[in-house]
Amino acid sequence: MTLVLSNEDVEAAFTMEDCLSALEETYRHVAEGQALTGRRSDVMTPTEPYQGEEASYLLKIMNGADAKLGIAALRLTSEIMIWPEISGVRRRTKAPRAPNDRWVGLVMLFSTTTGEPLAIFPDGVMQKMRVAATSALSAKFIAREDAEIVALIGAGWQAGAHALALSKVRALKEIRVFSPTKKRRETFCKELQEEIGVTMSPVDSPEAAVQGADIVQCATSAMENVYFKDWMQPGVHVATIRDGELEPAMIDAADVLVIHDPANMGHAHFQAIGGARNKDHDNETAGREGRDDWTSAPSLADIISGKKTGRENDNQTSCFLNYRGFGVQFAAAGAAFYHKAKEMKLGHDLPTDWFTEDVLP
Amino acid sequence: MTLVLSNEDVEAAFTMEDCLSALEETYRHVAEGQALTGRRSDVMTPTEPYQGEEASYLLKIMNGADAKLGIAALRLTSEIMIWPEISGVRRRTKAPRAPNDRWVGLVMLFSTTTGEPLAIFPDGVMQKMRVAATSALSAKFIAREDAEIVALIGAGWQAGAHALALSKVRALKEIRVFSPTKKRRETFCKELQEEIGVTMSPVDSPEAAVQGADIVQCATSAMENVYFKDWMQPGVHVATIRDGELEPAMIDAADVLVIHDPANMGHAHFQAIGGARNKDHDNETAGREGRDDWTSAPSLADIISGKKTGRENDNQTSCFLNYRGFGVQFAAAGAAFYHKAKEMKLGHDLPTDWFTEDVLP
Repeated sequence: MTLVLSNEDVEAAFTMEDCLSALEETYRHVAEGQALTGRRSDVMTPTEPYQGEEASYLLKIMNGADAKLGIAALRLTSEIMIWPEISGVRRRTKAPRAPNDRWVGLVMLFSTTTGEPLAIFPDGVMQKMRVAATSALSAKFIAREDAEIVALIGAGWQAGAHALALSKVRALKEIRVFSPTKKRRETFCKELQEEIGVTMSPVDSPEAAVQGADIVQCATSAMENVYFKDWMQPGVHVATIRDGELEPAMIDAADVLVIHDPANMGHAHFQAIGGARNKDHDNETAGREGRDDWTSAPSLADIISGKKTGRENDNQTSCFLNYRGFGVQFAAAGAAFYHKAKEMKLGHDLPTDWFTEDVLP
Repeated sequence: MTLVLSNEDVEAAFTMEDCLSALEETYRHVAEGQALTGRRSDVMTPTEPYQGEEASYLLKIMNGADAKLGIAALRLTSEIMIWPEISGVRRRTKAPRAPNDRWVGLVMLFSTTTGEPLAIFPDGVMQKMRVAATSALSAKFIAREDAEIVALIGAGWQAGAHALALSKVRALKEIRVFSPTKKRRETFCKELQEEIGVTMSPVDSPEAAVQGADIVQCATSAMENVYFKDWMQPGVHVATIRDGELEPAMIDAADVLVIHDPANMGHAHFQAIGGARNKDHDNETAGREGRDDWTSAPSLADIISGKKTGRENDNQTSCFLNYRGFGVQFAAAGAAFYHKAKEMKLGHDLPTDWFTEDVLP
């Protein structure tokens, strides 16, 4: 049977600890040459405006496989992209234009032994968890051992997952949260403090958050820089989930720079129809000037496996760029979730024959 | 609702004429910059041997979108690749190792207006049809107007679809068929002649097939060259569905060379784990020496749209390389099939909510 699972199933069967250990294991497989990520492939077309604002359609695909787990994964998003200005900041977001005002993102898992499709499920909850777990793994392996104060820039869904994930890898004393809207950051801290068991402090400015912080985690949807070179302090570990959050000069100034996947840092994966506007890419290109060669930077797999050295002392600054999705993460997290979901008998069973064929393709 | 359709549904609702006209239309959209193909992305890993023979797992993804049709498509195959020797020839094929001895290939269609998944179905029948229709479109736009004799090398599934497709684009008098096994080519001709309404003649050697033929169509699973420079005659149009079927010197000698998609001719899409053997790529690289730059060759879209000139006179030789899949074809053929399937109320309706989400991915 092929399982159709839901975001609720992911929430029920897959914890942040599961995600952290699945990703850490697969990063080791990557370093051993037993797991890999394919090239990302995006196609973008014009589409109808959304609430009067320019919109573009984007089909984004990433894939990967972990031979040791025997699982391959494909993750796709089929998105209506918009770039509204919210609280004075231009944001990259997606319009829920599928029936019932929903978004579209899916993960499919395959057996590398039989080729069969094992499961299909929405990507949302797993996406949030795997991004946060990856940032937290960078903190686990690169931040100072005694790091205890986190500055969290952002108070959205991704930011919440990051607070949880970071609390699992270091004994934190405080997470200081800045986001432009006072009420939002206050509610965010109040709600999360109980769940995470770490003091959460809303602060009035990004400077107040980062001053004295051991870890700075940017987790916003902002299109503008939210953390700057001048704010760096000795020993800090900075992580970002989006190209453009960090001032380019800050990235260049870090003593230790770690990236996700050298093969997927460029834009070669991206194809667009002329009329389709991609403000993301405008921005990314701007942020990237003079930085087209990422091959010399160690990857997180290099660091986790011990192949390359991250931080060498407590005074160094370090930076992890957690973007340009790493498809193999969906094989890793997907495999762990799938086995748990099977045990718990979650999801809708569909006949695998619906998704296989008796003719040679 | 999201439709789950089958190969039988494709056979019931989608004719070769439908396929030819859908592809021709989308090729024009490609030339206008209103349809496009993404980068292909393949990941390969080692897997268990199949019947004692070395095997590799391959997850292969292509995508594309036609903005005028409002449809984007993803096509994946999740394959156990093997390279057995059959009738003295090494062939590239796929082991049916999914439950009930089945293969795995899927097409997914999305609306570029809402992002929603419209349909999912096995790729086998459509794959055969779109490859054959593409070869036939090359004949329609590049072969001599008066072409009436076809040499068909191969007597498998793809070859059969090619015979049908070619019969739709030229008034054919005879299709001569060579394949190594006498009984196979005889049965093939006997069965198809009635369906297609063209004289089908099994012949004893490839030379006997190609001598005096106006169109040479290679449609084999062979890993070795099956058509050679020395066999070329003035005015012939040669098409191939697989890298390696044509002797490289033959390709170089053609007066008019047309390819599928300059952006997807290279191997940049391919990522493999060390232990995974890819005899395909061994072969392709060998066949390609000195031919890494394909950017100067016109694409089929250039020719169909009239942007570039194909054949200029009846004495020129022409050659079309029908490989390196062109993802947008699945958007074209998929859209035509989907609308027909809806009309005919085919398939299983599944709730679209299963494949969409209420959280922003």
